Amino acid sequence: MARISTAPIKGARDFLPRDLAPRNRVFQLMRDTFERYGYEPLETPAIEHSSVLEGKYGEEGERLLFRILKNGRDLETAANDLLARGPAAERSAGAVARGFSEMALRYDLTVPLARVIAAHQNDLVTPFRRYQMQPVWRGDRPQRGRYREFFQCDVDCVGSRSMTVDAEMVAIHHEVFARLGFQTFVTQVSHRGLLDALMEASGVAPEQRTPARVQIDKFDKIGADGVRVELQRIGLADRVTDALLETLSLTGAPLDMLEALRPLLRETHQGETSLRELQEVFGYIRAMGVPQERYELRLSMVRGSDYYTGSIYETVLPGSGLGTLGAGGRYDKLVGMFLGRDIPAVGISFGVERMLVALEDAGLLAGGAITTTQALVTLFDAETVGASFALAQALRAADLRTEVYTEPKGLGPQLAFASKKGIPLAFIIGPDELARGEVKLRDLRTREEVSIPQAEAPAQALARLAAH
Amino acid sequence: MARISTAPIKGARDFLPRDLAPRNRVFQLMRDTFERYGYEPLETPAIEHSSVLEGKYGEEGERLLFRILKNGRDLETAANDLLARGPAAERSAGAVARGFSEMALRYDLTVPLARVIAAHQNDLVTPFRRYQMQPVWRGDRPQRGRYREFFQCDVDCVGSRSMTVDAEMVAIHHEVFARLGFQTFVTQVSHRGLLDALMEASGVAPEQRTPARVQIDKFDKIGADGVRVELQRIGLADRVTDALLETLSLTGAPLDMLEALRPLLRETHQGETSLRELQEVFGYIRAMGVPQERYELRLSMVRGSDYYTGSIYETVLPGSGLGTLGAGGRYDKLVGMFLGRDIPAVGISFGVERMLVALEDAGLLAGGAITTTQALVTLFDAETVGASFALAQALRAADLRTEVYTEPKGLGPQLAFASKKGIPLAFIIGPDELARGEVKLRDLRTREEVSIPQAEAPAQALARLAAH
Repeated sequence: MARISTAPIKGARDFLPRDLAPRNRVFQLMRDTFERYGYEPLETPAIEHSSVLEGKYGEEGERLLFRILKNGRDLETAANDLLARGPAAERSAGAVARGFSEMALRYDLTVPLARVIAAHQNDLVTPFRRYQMQPVWRGDRPQRGRYREFFQCDVDCVGSRSMTVDAEMVAIHHEVFARLGFQTFVTQVSHRGLLDALMEASGVAPEQRTPARVQIDKFDKIGADGVRVELQRIGLADRVTDALLETLSLTGAPLDMLEALRPLLRETHQGETSLRELQEVFGYIRAMGVPQERYELRLSMVRGSDYYTGSIYETVLPGSGLGTLGAGGRYDKLVGMFLGRDIPAVGISFGVERMLVALEDAGLLAGGAITTTQALVTLFDAETVGASFALAQALRAADLRTEVYTEPKGLGPQLAFASKKGIPLAFIIGPDELARGEVKLRDLRTREEVSIPQAEAPAQALARLAAH
Repeated sequence: MARISTAPIKGARDFLPRDLAPRNRVFQLMRDTFERYGYEPLETPAIEHSSVLEGKYGEEGERLLFRILKNGRDLETAANDLLARGPAAERSAGAVARGFSEMALRYDLTVPLARVIAAHQNDLVTPFRRYQMQPVWRGDRPQRGRYREFFQCDVDCVGSRSMTVDAEMVAIHHEVFARLGFQTFVTQVSHRGLLDALMEASGVAPEQRTPARVQIDKFDKIGADGVRVELQRIGLADRVTDALLETLSLTGAPLDMLEALRPLLRETHQGETSLRELQEVFGYIRAMGVPQERYELRLSMVRGSDYYTGSIYETVLPGSGLGTLGAGGRYDKLVGMFLGRDIPAVGISFGVERMLVALEDAGLLAGGAITTTQALVTLFDAETVGASFALAQALRAADLRTEVYTEPKGLGPQLAFASKKGIPLAFIIGPDELARGEVKLRDLRTREEVSIPQAEAPAQALARLAAH
């Protein structure tokens, strides 16, 4: 056989047990949290009809779709069609792709949600709270922290205009990041209409608002003075810039800030609505018991995506250099795309791959196990194999994840095997122990070793594991 | 927007919460069991280089690969190459596919395991026990119970020739099926070399053994008499057929059967080895405590795949009409394919999709919840929203999966919502309850309703859920 590269494809990863142990712990904690808030799991196929995906991600996104090649007769027909058109054939990647493919891999979890809402409208009980945690594929140039196959994690509530759900998104952010052990995160909250209203009140002309928004988005990076220079550069009058920046720099308790803004926004188009909705949202966030240092009203927040229609949120770890770890907002006009009508929705997306980096940087993954296995039972010889198996079954019955070494061998290699894998406990049974009805329990973390009656093995193992 | 079909692609499924609730319970029980035996999770990318997959699945299998279309410049180049060859171009699907694609979707979990073994040989501690439970894709014609995207579930131990591992595979089969609640399953055990030795001993000529094996494989379906007719049809002498069928019809305790066969197989090529290995395997199975009615030595078992080299197993539910629910064996020559050397391995594969059908047929999924959510907290009005949120947070802190209804509404629609979703408990707080520091707990399964102090809500909910 010719030498074949056995590396995974560029931008994708093999997850070995020692990678999955922390990864699955984080995923499980997230699932648990979503379910605690009444969000249910949803899963959709990896492969979608191209017609479902096309026209949803912009030209740039569409180029990154992984498309499935037609097969059999269909593929021969596509090739014959191309050949029949001969030299005149349109050879752009887009045109060829449409001829040779009619399905593509999932690119995000929002379009599949919208498709499910349309396909199963009679089976779904609304308001529909769901989370989805599955891989997506994008033919992007891989770089550090950016993959071509990676997990997305979306939590959405579809079918309600109630601000209780907007607030719940912030509560879920809080609970996820707090349970993961992050100490310093903040969820920034704002409203799509609020910044527009602030610009209107400060005298930013309608045609200047889109370019101004791009500059304001840099607020966290370059500060008020940096943004001032940029706004002047794109032609905002000094008076307008000053007024806007003074407002954007406001800080304080969210409900106080909203009160302070009220007189300013009275004459604007979206001011009243934004203030009223945010007032409700912040009231509910407080009622849900989210500690006040974990969220703030951030007037300069922009959130790039066009589809948000109401409240918006971003969770950051100040000083981590990692940007946004989770974000979302209300988007009342997107999820009904396949039904041709507006369906209210609010949702958040967790940057799970980036969160794992942040957890690692913060040392929050370090203490955990690198294997799921908790105990190794050694094998001495043919005579004692039965006793080793019986002990292993007793440990398993107590829900202890227990491996029996595959064959009788010296004790050294068997314990070295357990240590290399990160298994914390080893049970050693030889003829002497067997004769006494005992077993040696060795804690590979502390190198302590005790002889105990066999019947006590499960309880002692559970106690030792719980103590660490 | 043109009308777009929102059905999932043919042969793939959307899993709504009510589908996933039982499905995830089954998957979780399987993971738990594998981990109890010291098997660790492994995950590999959905997309593999075509060179990794090609030549592994036979011509038929290779036609079923879902291939990824090249993109951008690469795709334009492929189209130009085809056009440059003009009318003389090879237009078969295979040839076109090789020009337009260099990656494909995972087709099974064995080739990725072999690739991982080669790619990470220095990172893996052997013997390497791993399980993998991920979707695979095959462009098969969809039909009832056969999908184009479906889960496979493999459990393998790589790197040991010890028969303890072969026996462990039967123990894992037993534990999975028993914990799922199946009452009548049997794991049939045999050995690749045993049937060959039995044919040799009965006088089946070497060139007749492969066709004879195909007929013997029908033993369960058509019985000894049916197989007799078939063996005679393919030219086996009556004397040979009689001798062979007499042996194949042997039943009894496995170790007794092995003893009975020993004199017969003394002169055969693989007889001694097969008997010795099976004797070890059955001894260990017994030592592991697998009840004797749950396994048997099945001399007529064939297992189609060529790559098995030692013990083989199949678990069936007699009378279910569902065929094999799990199967596997020792295959010492496959998993080293990318390293060019033999690496011993033994493994089993669970037919998870078929197992779910069997569970449903047996009524074993019926009792379970159809939603992950355990409690609904109702919303009465703006005044009591805070109390509803506070109660929900208290329930969540006790790890109860709790949904708050999205907005104040009549009690009827809120309880109807909970019933439709299958949520078992509802907590009702209105102004009267609030004034008394109470809450109404309604069991939607029994329609009982009691007023309880708010502080007791978590404990009472846990007690009610545990009682059912």
